[in-house]
Amino acid sequence: MTSPADRPAVQAAAPRVAVLGGGIVGLASAWALARAGCRVEVFDDDPGGGASFAAAGMIAPTSEAAFGQEHLLAAGLASARLWPDFARDLEHCTGASVALQSTGTLLVASDHDDAAVVQRHTMLLDRLGLASQRLGTRAARRLEPALSPRLCAGVLLRDEHSVDPRRVVRLLLAALGSLGVQVRPTRARPLLAAARCVGVVTEPGPGRPVERVEADAVVVASGWSARDVVLPGLDLRRAVRPLKGQILRLRGEPGLLTRTVRATVHGDEVYLVPRPDGEVVVGATSEDVGVDTRVTAGGVHELLRSAVAVVPEVAELELVEATARLRPATVDNLPLVGATGTPGLLVAVGHGRDGILLTPLTAQVMTAAVLDAPAPRHAESLDPQRFAAERSPM
Amino acid sequence: MTSPADRPAVQAAAPRVAVLGGGIVGLASAWALARAGCRVEVFDDDPGGGASFAAAGMIAPTSEAAFGQEHLLAAGLASARLWPDFARDLEHCTGASVALQSTGTLLVASDHDDAAVVQRHTMLLDRLGLASQRLGTRAARRLEPALSPRLCAGVLLRDEHSVDPRRVVRLLLAALGSLGVQVRPTRARPLLAAARCVGVVTEPGPGRPVERVEADAVVVASGWSARDVVLPGLDLRRAVRPLKGQILRLRGEPGLLTRTVRATVHGDEVYLVPRPDGEVVVGATSEDVGVDTRVTAGGVHELLRSAVAVVPEVAELELVEATARLRPATVDNLPLVGATGTPGLLVAVGHGRDGILLTPLTAQVMTAAVLDAPAPRHAESLDPQRFAAERSPM
Repeated sequence: MTSPADRPAVQAAAPRVAVLGGGIVGLASAWALARAGCRVEVFDDDPGGGASFAAAGMIAPTSEAAFGQEHLLAAGLASARLWPDFARDLEHCTGASVALQSTGTLLVASDHDDAAVVQRHTMLLDRLGLASQRLGTRAARRLEPALSPRLCAGVLLRDEHSVDPRRVVRLLLAALGSLGVQVRPTRARPLLAAARCVGVVTEPGPGRPVERVEADAVVVASGWSARDVVLPGLDLRRAVRPLKGQILRLRGEPGLLTRTVRATVHGDEVYLVPRPDGEVVVGATSEDVGVDTRVTAGGVHELLRSAVAVVPEVAELELVEATARLRPATVDNLPLVGATGTPGLLVAVGHGRDGILLTPLTAQVMTAAVLDAPAPRHAESLDPQRFAAERSPM
Repeated sequence: MTSPADRPAVQAAAPRVAVLGGGIVGLASAWALARAGCRVEVFDDDPGGGASFAAAGMIAPTSEAAFGQEHLLAAGLASARLWPDFARDLEHCTGASVALQSTGTLLVASDHDDAAVVQRHTMLLDRLGLASQRLGTRAARRLEPALSPRLCAGVLLRDEHSVDPRRVVRLLLAALGSLGVQVRPTRARPLLAAARCVGVVTEPGPGRPVERVEADAVVVASGWSARDVVLPGLDLRRAVRPLKGQILRLRGEPGLLTRTVRATVHGDEVYLVPRPDGEVVVGATSEDVGVDTRVTAGGVHELLRSAVAVVPEVAELELVEATARLRPATVDNLPLVGATGTPGLLVAVGHGRDGILLTPLTAQVMTAAVLDAPAPRHAESLDPQRFAAERSPM
């Protein structure tokens, strides 16, 4: 982004960027921008406490592939390829391990109808030229002996990863700290003047007055609540909606599973993501119920029922946490990443179920957009302008 | 209890009593003893944090009745009859409501095998001369419209109550406070000298030295952990064992259920205890697994599966809490309440699944035992001496 002529020349070399939202998308974007030379501040009253707090952390574009979602698949594959370098950079910057797991994903099915679902998915991957390896039940159980013997069908997807999003958020916060980027514990909203964005206004709190912070660029990365940001040129309320997810964290001895298991169980989808420390994440519901973050008896019951059917020993694990958060879903299942119609205002929202997967690509696209550099591939399909508001009397 | 001759005469009028354990049994005993004129101190590092914290609060001797458990039934019926006065006294003393629910219990069954279980129970009640009212499924659903239409058989037990044990613990603590009884935030153990109990020794903690506190009587009411109290004449380790229970607290609009529902669901037992504020307690597992207070995926799954089968709308309730605690179970399912072979040392432990039910009777029996007053009825069946250790070389 070139600084406008009416701003002091001293800022031209180092644009000031305000990032609204300290989830993994906002933090990774802030980190990329800071490393690209911007002077960055992040605003969030609970960094990492939203959808990133719930996320299982699958980096799984092929198992998420769906008919008619070619743009999402392409972006997901590109971002998954960025993950190992993203993790290495973060490790280099913080001296701590990201613990990226690259053991792949095993798809399994509970009954013959479920097996047909898995088979259709494999045929889709074949058609898209994506590698998958069909396994019999016995071969699947040799890979993962904890699987129920009553499963039918298994497919191994080798090129998928997983990561603990909470760990990534912690490391991103540490990395930002080491670059002198402040994460300010308050919510804020964009400040518009003369049809352009000139900074942000913080939310007042007890003993904390409203504050205006000037910025050359403002990045809205506040997840589903970005829909409350009213922009003249972009209808975020039409584009973004909350999609509730409930998810469980279980714990036992390490080694029950060695890779992500995704299962179709009598028509229900469930995944189990093991971590090296013995945590097993079981997710997730997808509920179009508006702004509701209650953990429900029915949500937990469904997840446990399916998980126990796939891996009976799950019943012996400690149930450490049941969490519900709101994903920022979009009507076309693609996020909105880039410039809006309002100069100085950018968005990185709407990542739905794919926030962790799409984080490195989002950070790249966002950095290019802020610095007015050539856009990386796939940026076009994420262009927020596809939700440009129709002209209407204001 | 008469003071021994070797103690100062000034103590004779008001015996000093130390109660080890601040669960509902220890607190109610302390309260009764204080009201009877004793100088009481309670020792517990987490009053009300043990089995009382988990308990659903059913006061349900007839639905708990079992073949061959006549003494327990008699004690339970007697204690249930004491509950309304116990609650009224506590309300009078604290000015707060105990919220004793007296809407009875509805027994239901999921399938024909389950119905046979309910029928056998009803026949047992008939034989014991205890009232029950058989209902068809439609009549049961008129009483509780939230019940699944797929249930078969219903039996109404009118004379049962329920109460929130956490509320009772809070009120007991307030009542004790108003009588000047201290609850000291430390664990302690009995202090024996010359084959009698002369007081207690507190556990050391950070910045808190060991302290000896003299007492004329010591009441051990520390639940399952009482088994670690080594007594010359009583084998508590043989008598008492931990019995793990997992239990859920759900929350929704008040009025989903108006009375306790106990169900047999494909052979599993579950109960749902509604509270006036919309809480619904779903319990409970009974697991003979030693000292283990992990909430497990399997335990929660079982409870939710059965509860949703009985009351489908349970799926919509918020899952507020999953708790596991250890009940103090005994080999004959009766508690140990009264004097031990060691002068000055009494016990009130081993209440198993019936701690809330048996609290008022226990407090009466204990008060009589400490004051050497005539024992109330049923005290004999609770006599700890039935576990007197065989004479062995010490």
